[in-house]
Amino acid sequence: MEVFAQQVAGKGDSVSALLESYAAGRWFRAADDGEPLLDAATGEEVGRISSRGLDVAAMVRYARETGGPALRALTFHERAALLKALAKHLLEGKEELYALSVRTGATARDTAIDVDGGIGTLFSYASKGVRELPNDTVFLDGGLERLGKGGTFVGQHLYTSRPGVAVQINAFNFPVWGMLEKLGPAFLAGLPSIVKPAGQTAYLAEAAVRQIIQSGILPEGSLQLLAGGAGGLLDELTVQDSVDFTGSAHTAGVLRRHPNVLDGGVLLGVEADSLNCSILGPDVRPEDPEFGLFVKGVVTEMTVKAGQKCTAIRRVLVPEALAGTVVEALSARLAKVTVGDPRNPEVRMGALASLGQRDEVRKAVETLRASAEIVAGDPGGGPVLDGDPERGAFMTPLLLRARPGATEPHDVEPFGPVATVLAYNGVEQAVALAARGRGSLVASVATHDPDVARSVVLGLAPWHGRVLVLDRDDAQESTGHGSPLPVLVHGGPGRAGGGEELGGIRGVLHHMQRTAVQASPDLLTAVTGRWTTGAARIDPGVHPFRKSLAELRIGDTISSARRTVSTADIDHFAEFTGDTFYAHTDPAAAARNPLFGGIVAHGYLVVSLAAGLFVDPAPGPVLANFGVDALRFLTPVKAGDAIAVTLTVKQITPRSGADYGEVRWDAVVTNQEDRPVATYDVLTLVAKTWPQNAR
Amino acid sequence: MEVFAQQVAGKGDSVSALLESYAAGRWFRAADDGEPLLDAATGEEVGRISSRGLDVAAMVRYARETGGPALRALTFHERAALLKALAKHLLEGKEELYALSVRTGATARDTAIDVDGGIGTLFSYASKGVRELPNDTVFLDGGLERLGKGGTFVGQHLYTSRPGVAVQINAFNFPVWGMLEKLGPAFLAGLPSIVKPAGQTAYLAEAAVRQIIQSGILPEGSLQLLAGGAGGLLDELTVQDSVDFTGSAHTAGVLRRHPNVLDGGVLLGVEADSLNCSILGPDVRPEDPEFGLFVKGVVTEMTVKAGQKCTAIRRVLVPEALAGTVVEALSARLAKVTVGDPRNPEVRMGALASLGQRDEVRKAVETLRASAEIVAGDPGGGPVLDGDPERGAFMTPLLLRARPGATEPHDVEPFGPVATVLAYNGVEQAVALAARGRGSLVASVATHDPDVARSVVLGLAPWHGRVLVLDRDDAQESTGHGSPLPVLVHGGPGRAGGGEELGGIRGVLHHMQRTAVQASPDLLTAVTGRWTTGAARIDPGVHPFRKSLAELRIGDTISSARRTVSTADIDHFAEFTGDTFYAHTDPAAAARNPLFGGIVAHGYLVVSLAAGLFVDPAPGPVLANFGVDALRFLTPVKAGDAIAVTLTVKQITPRSGADYGEVRWDAVVTNQEDRPVATYDVLTLVAKTWPQNAR
Repeated sequence: MEVFAQQVAGKGDSVSALLESYAAGRWFRAADDGEPLLDAATGEEVGRISSRGLDVAAMVRYARETGGPALRALTFHERAALLKALAKHLLEGKEELYALSVRTGATARDTAIDVDGGIGTLFSYASKGVRELPNDTVFLDGGLERLGKGGTFVGQHLYTSRPGVAVQINAFNFPVWGMLEKLGPAFLAGLPSIVKPAGQTAYLAEAAVRQIIQSGILPEGSLQLLAGGAGGLLDELTVQDSVDFTGSAHTAGVLRRHPNVLDGGVLLGVEADSLNCSILGPDVRPEDPEFGLFVKGVVTEMTVKAGQKCTAIRRVLVPEALAGTVVEALSARLAKVTVGDPRNPEVRMGALASLGQRDEVRKAVETLRASAEIVAGDPGGGPVLDGDPERGAFMTPLLLRARPGATEPHDVEPFGPVATVLAYNGVEQAVALAARGRGSLVASVATHDPDVARSVVLGLAPWHGRVLVLDRDDAQESTGHGSPLPVLVHGGPGRAGGGEELGGIRGVLHHMQRTAVQASPDLLTAVTGRWTTGAARIDPGVHPFRKSLAELRIGDTISSARRTVSTADIDHFAEFTGDTFYAHTDPAAAARNPLFGGIVAHGYLVVSLAAGLFVDPAPGPVLANFGVDALRFLTPVKAGDAIAVTLTVKQITPRSGADYGEVRWDAVVTNQEDRPVATYDVLTLVAKTWPQNAR
Repeated sequence: MEVFAQQVAGKGDSVSALLESYAAGRWFRAADDGEPLLDAATGEEVGRISSRGLDVAAMVRYARETGGPALRALTFHERAALLKALAKHLLEGKEELYALSVRTGATARDTAIDVDGGIGTLFSYASKGVRELPNDTVFLDGGLERLGKGGTFVGQHLYTSRPGVAVQINAFNFPVWGMLEKLGPAFLAGLPSIVKPAGQTAYLAEAAVRQIIQSGILPEGSLQLLAGGAGGLLDELTVQDSVDFTGSAHTAGVLRRHPNVLDGGVLLGVEADSLNCSILGPDVRPEDPEFGLFVKGVVTEMTVKAGQKCTAIRRVLVPEALAGTVVEALSARLAKVTVGDPRNPEVRMGALASLGQRDEVRKAVETLRASAEIVAGDPGGGPVLDGDPERGAFMTPLLLRARPGATEPHDVEPFGPVATVLAYNGVEQAVALAARGRGSLVASVATHDPDVARSVVLGLAPWHGRVLVLDRDDAQESTGHGSPLPVLVHGGPGRAGGGEELGGIRGVLHHMQRTAVQASPDLLTAVTGRWTTGAARIDPGVHPFRKSLAELRIGDTISSARRTVSTADIDHFAEFTGDTFYAHTDPAAAARNPLFGGIVAHGYLVVSLAAGLFVDPAPGPVLANFGVDALRFLTPVKAGDAIAVTLTVKQITPRSGADYGEVRWDAVVTNQEDRPVATYDVLTLVAKTWPQNAR
């Protein structure tokens, strides 16, 4: 089967093969001939697909029993490292994917969004996983909750991996990105994935999965592929499993009605229809840069991927007075869009995924025409560069202009290169029209007016998962209305499905279970592996700065001697640093300060002296202090007060690929009455080993 | 109707009144006689209930058009202040609620959980709202995402209020707490509530709502009461609305099947059946304190509220070798539980809510007996202190012991004073048995062994919303297995409904929409009202420390002069503070440091000098520096480097009830090459006004 990709990648090659599923550790080929999958531009057969005879129950078992345990044995950092290796591997093999992508009707620009975009998502998750997740298997959510006055009973929220399976049902439009943007977060979360690509373009997803499996990078069982119908798969799922679906509202409705979803506790995430809008701000005049940016954005979204994007702009909301001007500008730009076989580099917009898909779009356009007229494009077709005009699913971009009070543009999603211009009067009406989409993935607004930006964005926000503000300042770096980014949430309320994907670590936590743990500080420390206020402090025998990362233990503590802070110290610090704020220097004025009532030591003096008290100066494994978190000054320090500091190892995070790691220390400075003066976390880099310590 | 509460509170009073709904600004009384509601212990009629003729569509409209806009006009802090005032008001009127609570079968202890617990939840949300939410209407989620290298295109997640309605369908067991724990978070989130109490105990919920409405504290329309059947209410809901339900899995299933939930985008939160377990750790011997704590905890959960708690312990998991001992200890303790009319202070456990409820429990016990035998308690009844043994819904607590391989105890929830003991062998089996509940609200484990705590808690976590670890250290302050706390999430996966409530601010954010906003820094600043890195810095004309809170503007900036850091400065600082770490003092050793390669200035020296550079020393509106957040040292400062600092107003938070507020400043220290040396947030308290500035 290694040659399959070459077989199907060649244009006009009449040999066609049956796609295989990767199930329970081996490649599975269905017993029958399967259904044909056709090249979008030429209509030639690319491959065939069938899952007849596939044992989906065995796939679920394999994920639970082989993939899940292997994955959950890895820390977040280890999983992130595998995602990074995988991204690099796919980058090397991307030419093969490019060649197959053309067959879906995609231009080079479309392919970059799918293939490079998908690989970029993995890189992003690899990076976020290391920077924002601990080198551990448990994620702590929020701070410690003190549940009793004595501090013996505390609460902490944490996220753990579910011992289940993530089923990912993907749409046909982005066979690579759509798969990787679901796989990456689920993998980081410790959930094995069963991927079910849409049939139409499954040959591209299959090629990508084949590259992944052949690389051997991911633990066996953490990724399986179901090529073909998913009959019976949902019947196998239960409480700890999830289904993430991208596709039509109709199919989403079918999934929502499955008994295992309704009553069986299977989590269902949906990203479905979305009538996204783009709004030209009421402040924008035709001569402003935002006008051109807006027009360009709309045309881009209409034509990229031939408009087959769940985030594409379907509704173009413009101030009534400018509606004609906008239609003209859009029409002029659309007229330049060349349609045809994406193999021709002159082609700006390729084919729709299939003739059936085009029929759907044409049907939607007919419905739209009940309340809108076509103002640009030829609904019957138009010039086609190369490609087979009969067998290729070509259509020219169509712009419609809605009549006042039109309802169809808010209800009908033409999943192709089609958008409708609607006029509005005032920001409030623009927001109200946007809301008539009943929940969308994304909206954008072109404006350079801060008040417009605030009122439009806050008005749109409850109805959208993402809102883009386009202006002259961000245009150059803007990734555009239609591009979901791995670091930002992707999904929308209501009609858009109500799901949330991506958003950096948010997308990982969606796949995990949040639990509130209540315990004594000692046992909470044991559970989380991080030191908890109130837990035992350990005397490590030596100064903990003498211990390497490998030798340090959670709870290792240094309690310093006391140092009395004198008036001379305060005076001197003020003079030396230049911080002569009156509360440190002017007794009469300081006495009038409502919080201090007299001269106080600088907060910076307190923490500087504390460092002097806890530091062990000789060269050792502690390499540097790279930061301080959550410093709070709780009690003023006055001349004559004697301060001491207690420093305790709170968290140890080895950095993979470096010979040091991070140690977070809990620091508490107290005064002679043992009242806390300042609390903070000290962040240090500590060598993993320290040769001098070896015996 | 003001006298209604007095009418129904009196025991034996034969006058009974029809409960009223509070709908669209007025109290509504149904046209018919309604259904009778009976005293749990005496069987006497307490009141009648009906919603016949109630216009639920008008209620939804009223919430949307009157309550919602009024609520969303308030900041989080203003909403929190109203919750606090409301909590105080209810505290004053709690005697009336106590008197009605007795009629539900509740003992004084049960009533405290319901009434005082409910009021405490409001206090907790009032406090969290001020401390953890901004004095604004928009909540920022996570940090800024830089989306382009140039920093002109950035992303920020934020939460906004949904312009919808929160429908709260409550269970019969906690008519006050159950209502307030849903109302508080929704109110903070800016969502108006329509409360539908369970019929059985609706007279108590009605009395509480009457107190709330009469107080006039909440904005009109932010709370409505639906007493009686909710027919047609869900038909009125749409994308921005939510339903939060506590009750049976059966009713939850009905709600999940409503077309507006399945396809209409209505958000549904469910807290349903839950077969919570408590585990005696394998490390615990009968003579350990944890053994007694465990036994006491089980008996408490079986008998509080006569076991009618969704968080009660239904399954008692004990090491096989100790099963007999545990049964003996539990039986002995249960034998002392006096059952009867809660008006008798000798009574430890009151009545179930109704005879029908008791029938349900008895039916469940019969099912359990297929695989378990009753080892304590009399299924046919037992001694009853006062109360009418015929008309009162009394039953003695029942303990069962499961036979090996029993399945019923994992499937059947007897919603009363019933628990089943199951034996386990080893931690892994204990966790596996717990998981057979298919998702529960809470589990507990009694252990004093750190390894047991870690493995049991992490094993239980994916199956539970809350896990309690009970040991000798936290026992005194522990709030127990069965008590949801406002600061911890309440809810559970799978069979428990999959919902999440409470958890402090988490419970508020559940009611809001998360949106990713992409914009230029200037426009993002305009949208969020908080200064964004990369946005314009404003020269305020005077030093910003001269401006009061009312005068300060987001973006106000002070850019300091430069100061050269000398070797003498570093030497002196080391000597003065005692921080003689080798990287600051020992050139040869410092040269070997892999990160510095030579002597560097102390981080604390850098920030101290920066303060000297930005501070304006004379008395003024800036009262104090109370903290520093997220300090990171990015580039080492070496002798000869010249540093400067830029301080910009990032966020302004007036504190209500104080004559000052908080100002968060963005601080960036740069060196002579304009490279960032350190970045952090400086937190100050600033007077709201400063008389000297007035003209």
